Amino acid sequence: MAENFKVTPYEVEGKIDYDRFAKEFGISIIDKKLEERIEKLAGGSHWLLRRHIFYAHRDMNWLLDEYEKGNRFYLYTGIAPSGSMTLGHLIPFMFTQWLQEKFGVEVYIQIPDEEKALIRNVSFDEVHKLAYDDALNIIALGYDPKKTKIFFNTDYAGTLYRQAVRVAKRITFSMVKDAFGFTNETNIGSIFYTSMQAVPAFLKSVEEKKNVPCLIPLAIDQDVHFRVARDALVKLGYYKPAIVHAKFLPGLGGRPKMSASDPNDTIYLSDTPEAVEKKVHRAITGQQSTAELQKKLGGDPEKCSVCQYYRYLFEPDDKKLEKIFEGERKGTLLAGEHKDDLSKRINKFLEEHNKKRERLRSKLDEFILKD
Amino acid sequence: MAENFKVTPYEVEGKIDYDRFAKEFGISIIDKKLEERIEKLAGGSHWLLRRHIFYAHRDMNWLLDEYEKGNRFYLYTGIAPSGSMTLGHLIPFMFTQWLQEKFGVEVYIQIPDEEKALIRNVSFDEVHKLAYDDALNIIALGYDPKKTKIFFNTDYAGTLYRQAVRVAKRITFSMVKDAFGFTNETNIGSIFYTSMQAVPAFLKSVEEKKNVPCLIPLAIDQDVHFRVARDALVKLGYYKPAIVHAKFLPGLGGRPKMSASDPNDTIYLSDTPEAVEKKVHRAITGQQSTAELQKKLGGDPEKCSVCQYYRYLFEPDDKKLEKIFEGERKGTLLAGEHKDDLSKRINKFLEEHNKKRERLRSKLDEFILKD
Repeated sequence: MAENFKVTPYEVEGKIDYDRFAKEFGISIIDKKLEERIEKLAGGSHWLLRRHIFYAHRDMNWLLDEYEKGNRFYLYTGIAPSGSMTLGHLIPFMFTQWLQEKFGVEVYIQIPDEEKALIRNVSFDEVHKLAYDDALNIIALGYDPKKTKIFFNTDYAGTLYRQAVRVAKRITFSMVKDAFGFTNETNIGSIFYTSMQAVPAFLKSVEEKKNVPCLIPLAIDQDVHFRVARDALVKLGYYKPAIVHAKFLPGLGGRPKMSASDPNDTIYLSDTPEAVEKKVHRAITGQQSTAELQKKLGGDPEKCSVCQYYRYLFEPDDKKLEKIFEGERKGTLLAGEHKDDLSKRINKFLEEHNKKRERLRSKLDEFILKD
Repeated sequence: MAENFKVTPYEVEGKIDYDRFAKEFGISIIDKKLEERIEKLAGGSHWLLRRHIFYAHRDMNWLLDEYEKGNRFYLYTGIAPSGSMTLGHLIPFMFTQWLQEKFGVEVYIQIPDEEKALIRNVSFDEVHKLAYDDALNIIALGYDPKKTKIFFNTDYAGTLYRQAVRVAKRITFSMVKDAFGFTNETNIGSIFYTSMQAVPAFLKSVEEKKNVPCLIPLAIDQDVHFRVARDALVKLGYYKPAIVHAKFLPGLGGRPKMSASDPNDTIYLSDTPEAVEKKVHRAITGQQSTAELQKKLGGDPEKCSVCQYYRYLFEPDDKKLEKIFEGERKGTLLAGEHKDDLSKRINKFLEEHNKKRERLRSKLDEFILKD
C-alpha cells in the first residue's frame, strides 16, 4: 500500500489518491468510452457514473461483451452492519438499484452479520438486530422484490458455509495477513471471514449449475476481498466477478471517508432534522475565513464538503450542480445559505426515505432468504 | 510437545508416552477410584475403561458430581471422514455408545465433512459421500435413535456457524498455530475449523437456554481442539466440557497409531475377509524368531500387535484375554495359530457389523439432523 494513505475494509487513513490506489492493485479507470458503453446499454445515465464517483472497474468490458451475447449478469453487493447506516453507505446501493432497473437483472445482497462482531467490540446479537434495519434501508431505495435476494450470513450459513470452505481451502493466512492488515493476534473468525464474502460472487453459478457473470458494485476498500478470492474462484471453475469501484463519501469535517464511528463527521439515516442541521453547519467548506473575503476571492468547491455532498448525493442535475459550484467559486454563495440549503435537501431526503422504509417494513420478508 | 513424539489431529509421530502426554497438557490419569466411581454410577464395567485404553480425563469428577445432583450430561463425539473407517476409529464410538446405554443420555455426533477436505488433497464432494458411510458404521454400534443426533457440518452449518463465530472471536491465530502445527501457508478454512468442532460441546446449552454438562470421549489427538476452545467457552458463559481420552489402536506393523493412510498397517471396516487374513498374518508379534525358540523362551504380549488387538477390541472377557497373553508369554501359543484366531474374530465381527449396517441403512435418516 502507498505510504501516504491506507485503505483496508477495517482501516482507512490519510488522503486517498484514488488513481494511485487503482494503479497499485491493477484496477482500471472507467474511461469515457466505457462510460458511454454502459450508458448506451443501460439506456440512461447515472450521476454517480458521470461524476466519476464510480470511477474504476475490473473486467467490465468482458461483462458487457457477455451481456451483448445474451449472457446476462447478476449483481452482488452488501453491507456489514455495525451501527445506523450513513449517507455514505447508500452510494453503492443506489447505483446497484439503478443497474438492476436498467438492465433488469437480479441482485444478491449479503448482510454479513458476523463481520463487525468478529472485528470490533460489538456483540453478535447487537449486529444481528442492526442487520434488519440495514435491510429495510436498502429496500427503501427501490429494489424489485421479485429480483432481489437479501441474506444475513448467520441465517444463511447453511448455504454459504458449504461454498465458503471451498474458497477458504485456496486462501492462505499469508495472503490475508498483508491484504487485511491482520497479525498473529487476529482472531480466526476474522481470518476466515473473507471466504464468506466471496461466496455470493459465484453462488448463482452454483444454483444454476452453469457459469453466470457477476457484477459487484462496491466501495474501494472492499476490492481486497475479491483480489484475495479471484484466483480461488477461477480454480473452482467459476468466472471472476466484474467489479465497479466507488470513491468514499468524504466526511463533513474533511476526512477522506465519512467515518461511521465519528458521529460529528457523519450523517446517519437515523439522525433527527436538528442533528443534521447542526452537523452540516459545522461542516468544512472551501470558503474564505470571512463573508467579505469570500465575496472578494471566492472559494474552492473541491475542498468544500457541502459542495461534495451535492455532487455525491443531493443534486442529480449536472447544470444545477455546476451553478452551486460556481457560486462557491465566485463567492456569490455564502456559507450560511449554502449549508441551510444542504440541510434542507438532506432532511427532505431522509424524511421521504424513512417514509418508504416504514411503508416497506411489512414487505421485508419477501426479500429475505433463509436456509 | 515432548521431543520424542508428536501428536496433533493432523500428525502423529514417534513412540507415544501417554502418561507424559497427559502430564504435559494438564490432563489427569483415570485412577482406580474414578474408574470405580464411573462403574458404580454406570451400573457396569467396560473393558476399554478397565484396561486403561480410556486412560485419562478432564473434569470427570465434576461431571459425576453434577450427575449425582441430578444435572444430567450429554455426550459428544465425532469423526472426520477421509476414507473407509478403520477398527481404530470404532473405539471412541463403542465407548460412547456404552455410556449412552448405561447413563441413558443423549449423544451428539459431529461428522465434519469439511475438515479433511480442507487439510488434505481430497475433494469436498468425496468427503461428503464418505460421511454417510461413517454415519452408518456408527449407528451399527447400537446407538439409540431416540437419543442420538448425527450431523454433517456442511448440512448443519446454518446451526453451527452462528455459534462457531462466537468461539472464533476468542481464538487467535497464535493460539492455533502452535497447537495444530499450522504455518502462514495454512489455508484459512483449516485455521477456522477448530471453532466448528467446539460448537457441539455447548450446543445443547444453547438449545435448552441453560447450561448442560457435556462429556466428550475422544482419542488423545483431539484434545487440542478443546484445549484451545475451553477459555472461549467459559467467556461465553458455558461449562467447559468434561473429556475422557483414549489411546490409539496400534498399527499391525507396530506403529503407535493405526494409520488410516497406510493400508497394510490398518484394517478397514470395508476390508474383505481375505484382506483381513493377509494383513493379520503380516502383523508384528512379540514372539521369538522361530517356533522352537518361542516354545522355549516365550514372547512379549506388550510388543505383540495380535495380543493388543484382543486387548483393545476382540476379547472383552478379562480371563480369556489373560489366557491369550499367557500363551504368548509362555510360548504355548504359536504365531500362526494366534493370527488365525484373530483373523477369524475380526472377520466374524466385520460380518456381523456389516449386516447391522445394512439393516440400518433405511433408518439412517432418523439419526441425521439437518438445518
